[in-house]
Amino acid sequence: VQTHLITGAAGFIGSNLAARLRRRGDAVVLLDNLSNGKLANLRALQGDRLVHFARVDCADADAVLAAVQSAGFAPIDLVWHLAANSDIAAGIADLRIDVRDTFLTTAGVLAAMQALDLRRLNFASSSAVYGDFGGRAVDEDAGPLQPISNYGAMKLASEAQIRAACESFLENANIFRFPNVVGVPATHGVLLDFVRKLRATPGHLEVLGDGRQKKPYLHASDLLDAMLFAAAKLERGFNVLNIGPSDDGISVREIAEITRAAVSPDAAIAYGTAPGGWVGDVPRFSYSLDRLRRLGWRCDCSSKAAICKALNEIIEQEGEVTCSA
Amino acid sequence: VQTHLITGAAGFIGSNLAARLRRRGDAVVLLDNLSNGKLANLRALQGDRLVHFARVDCADADAVLAAVQSAGFAPIDLVWHLAANSDIAAGIADLRIDVRDTFLTTAGVLAAMQALDLRRLNFASSSAVYGDFGGRAVDEDAGPLQPISNYGAMKLASEAQIRAACESFLENANIFRFPNVVGVPATHGVLLDFVRKLRATPGHLEVLGDGRQKKPYLHASDLLDAMLFAAAKLERGFNVLNIGPSDDGISVREIAEITRAAVSPDAAIAYGTAPGGWVGDVPRFSYSLDRLRRLGWRCDCSSKAAICKALNEIIEQEGEVTCSA
Repeated sequence: VQTHLITGAAGFIGSNLAARLRRRGDAVVLLDNLSNGKLANLRALQGDRLVHFARVDCADADAVLAAVQSAGFAPIDLVWHLAANSDIAAGIADLRIDVRDTFLTTAGVLAAMQALDLRRLNFASSSAVYGDFGGRAVDEDAGPLQPISNYGAMKLASEAQIRAACESFLENANIFRFPNVVGVPATHGVLLDFVRKLRATPGHLEVLGDGRQKKPYLHASDLLDAMLFAAAKLERGFNVLNIGPSDDGISVREIAEITRAAVSPDAAIAYGTAPGGWVGDVPRFSYSLDRLRRLGWRCDCSSKAAICKALNEIIEQEGEVTCSA
Repeated sequence: VQTHLITGAAGFIGSNLAARLRRRGDAVVLLDNLSNGKLANLRALQGDRLVHFARVDCADADAVLAAVQSAGFAPIDLVWHLAANSDIAAGIADLRIDVRDTFLTTAGVLAAMQALDLRRLNFASSSAVYGDFGGRAVDEDAGPLQPISNYGAMKLASEAQIRAACESFLENANIFRFPNVVGVPATHGVLLDFVRKLRATPGHLEVLGDGRQKKPYLHASDLLDAMLFAAAKLERGFNVLNIGPSDDGISVREIAEITRAAVSPDAAIAYGTAPGGWVGDVPRFSYSLDRLRRLGWRCDCSSKAAICKALNEIIEQEGEVTCSA
């Protein structure tokens, strides 16, 4: 039995990770400032004596420290730092959002880890650190990294600070560069956006960009499999790992058509003209997953399969919302 | 005549840049929080009506905004963002120093630039963003970047945020990756350290590390030449440029011997055993300068010549201090 600290624990990935770790018997200390995350996402863990939740802004190192100490669990074995702004477009409009929520949370977590003498960190990074490589399959050592969103920039900033911390007090840091991840509880993203738009105006779906944006999508359950597999193998040093599906992606056009077929088959789809959906959107992105495969993990699921699985889950999630409204 | 905003203007490079720009007739707005910089470094510009100084912490965007507006000059043409922590070793011991002084200053300057509609930025970055490439000549597109100091990490974080800002409001950003820069007013660095140690204990010089650390050194006057040359040529887009001397470096051992010969010829030099001088010190570093050369600029001065020139200047600087003490 291990004890884990999860930041951003009430968010999409965090709540799934917490549930998974509890299912295998581990104890979890869960932190979230509830700015994007929701306590409802942790409902299934309520009352569990091996779960401790604290509402904490992770940019505040002292608050993180106090929350971990008040949990009263055995020493933390492993930290999963997932807290971040999840609204990339909002972060373009206001520089301060990603500085605070995507970067300063990392600074706060690292300072708290140093004070608590915690030496193992898994970090949720993003394909957004790469910027626009024009669809070429990029590996973890690629350069130059030129993020085009503040979100990507602040994930890269976080990676850099974690790397430097490996010179002083961290013994192990695994940087997981996520693709688009889908599933429930969905809080943002193209699928939720399309489902909600089609519910609001069933005859019409407006798509940001020309629909030819193509990116890899992974289901949250596969992401967790990959991270837990890799974290168990990589217990020393600084490691960077792309995580992705079995293929190189699915286009927004296909996602729009799949969603229309499931939600509102008669809707007309209107595409924009820009190659990217918004400022900071990388139109085509593809990963090299060789490093993860050499480690021994491979995803069986295509981007399309991940989308279809998540779409059904999101329709169910949104259905409930509609009924209770 | 142009108007320039310089942050970190009371520091080593900033004060030299301000003087140089004034000599060619440009107006300058100078900001510094005086944490490392000193007003004495700007003494020669006192009373000049085309110079406006304000004591401002650049992490505070509103304060930067107010200072620029109160200067009452014509609109700023060009921003030179040099404000940063300059004590790398201190930043290893306390993570918060480089977060605040090296990164959040960049965030503050960018936010103020956005509010003021300023679109051209020159940024003082560092070879420290590269991390340890084992002495291989690294070009600007090299990857992976793995800074081993918080200073390097927060310079990389700043670069990333500037890159992202080029997608929204910046029209031109030039990232200058500095080597070790020497000259006066010296505030830190190996030469000042050696001169002061030899003044304090003339018979003995203790060197951090085994003395085989080898890095390129550039004199501040050549650095300014390179930056001003490149900034005039690169007036659009996002550009990254290594700046360095004519050779690939000089060893700490040679610097120690040159300094001993000039200051205290009979001193015994005691070397350490570690390959790096301290945690976060890259033992051997070498640049590719092809991009700068293709642009048309080449330094005539070797690392050794830069060291010798700066050593004489620093001996004079420290001599005055001794006399006035």
